[in-house]
Amino acid sequence: MEGSQVAHRHPYVPRDLHLPDYVPCFLSQSSILSVFAISTLLVVSFIWIFSGRLPKKSKVDRVLMCWWAFTGLTHIILEGYFVFAPEFFKDKTGFYLAEVWKEYSKGDSRYVGRDAGVVTVEGLTAVIEGPASLLAVYAIATGKSYSYMLQFAISLGQLYGTAVYYITAILEGDNFSTNSFYYYAYYIGANFSWIVIPSIIAIRCWRKTSAAFRVQGQTKKPKVR
Amino acid sequence: MEGSQVAHRHPYVPRDLHLPDYVPCFLSQSSILSVFAISTLLVVSFIWIFSGRLPKKSKVDRVLMCWWAFTGLTHIILEGYFVFAPEFFKDKTGFYLAEVWKEYSKGDSRYVGRDAGVVTVEGLTAVIEGPASLLAVYAIATGKSYSYMLQFAISLGQLYGTAVYYITAILEGDNFSTNSFYYYAYYIGANFSWIVIPSIIAIRCWRKTSAAFRVQGQTKKPKVR
Repeated sequence: MEGSQVAHRHPYVPRDLHLPDYVPCFLSQSSILSVFAISTLLVVSFIWIFSGRLPKKSKVDRVLMCWWAFTGLTHIILEGYFVFAPEFFKDKTGFYLAEVWKEYSKGDSRYVGRDAGVVTVEGLTAVIEGPASLLAVYAIATGKSYSYMLQFAISLGQLYGTAVYYITAILEGDNFSTNSFYYYAYYIGANFSWIVIPSIIAIRCWRKTSAAFRVQGQTKKPKVR
Repeated sequence: MEGSQVAHRHPYVPRDLHLPDYVPCFLSQSSILSVFAISTLLVVSFIWIFSGRLPKKSKVDRVLMCWWAFTGLTHIILEGYFVFAPEFFKDKTGFYLAEVWKEYSKGDSRYVGRDAGVVTVEGLTAVIEGPASLLAVYAIATGKSYSYMLQFAISLGQLYGTAVYYITAILEGDNFSTNSFYYYAYYIGANFSWIVIPSIIAIRCWRKTSAAFRVQGQTKKPKVR
């Protein structure tokens, strides 16, 4: 905007990215990560303790509940803020969620640059997968019959989203990181869990469900599936 | 390219889309649609007759086999060609698949313009969902225990892809159609089936699978799910 008085140079690549009224990060990288790590620890501890009081929950189920609570809250709060705050890079208050995305954009400037593909994937993740992940915590806790289907569906959504995220970046030149540290730490590192964990959960759900159909097949043999 | 002798004006919107060496459609709209309709009819008829010879296949299963064969071949052949032929708009031979995308781009110029989001979604659809759809035909035919999970997974992938397709278009201004006829006929109309049918199939798979887990729960009562 022409009216901006003090023009801060942004740290993002490509260098010619136009970010009027950009305000630099107030918090350090370690502060941002510490808040995230402590919040995660609190959520996971709470769910672990709470799930321990439920009758007959296996350790795997309890770990899964922790994962779904963590990923659900990350999707809703962190990614939800990004989706609905397109001007986060102008934030002057040091608001934590704006700081997160100012910092993460050093690994992928498509966030601060409002790339349509990134906003779309984050939108679907925040609005659909986030609440669905919290529903998965409830479904596992109460032993719902749809529990595996729900976990399978969200995991596939996470994998599809991550695939779109990386493939669009490659097609657009894969040059959105401030330097290779941010490339590997943020762009690759921070998303890595959302490839590995959904893959493991999806495979587990696939196996459990196929087994349930074999049991059903044996129970009512003459009936056509 | 500067070396091109005859510069054909392309019919796509935005008008300033740069398409060097563009060659207009040779086939008429009705020819293109007729070939598609006849091919579809042949595939569906073949699968319908073939599935009728299988023991104990319900009509629903046979309809699903027709759908998966149709959608799988569409993904692999039509969308696969688009993904791996970035210069289809330069085709001078009247090759059918190039004609399809020259024509469809009138409804969405992001195809001819090689939008990263569109190429990504089409890539995932052609390379993963296409072969998976043909596997679904086989899985239904042979009554595999993973049949519902596979159909559910592909349907969710189709829905996610369609969501990305439309949301990115809206975020980028939703101005990629030559006129409102192509907007509604191609951009909306041609994709409509891939919203309705995957939704129906996904809901059906969800119900069948939840029911299978209830049966399993009744079969081995004391065991923790």
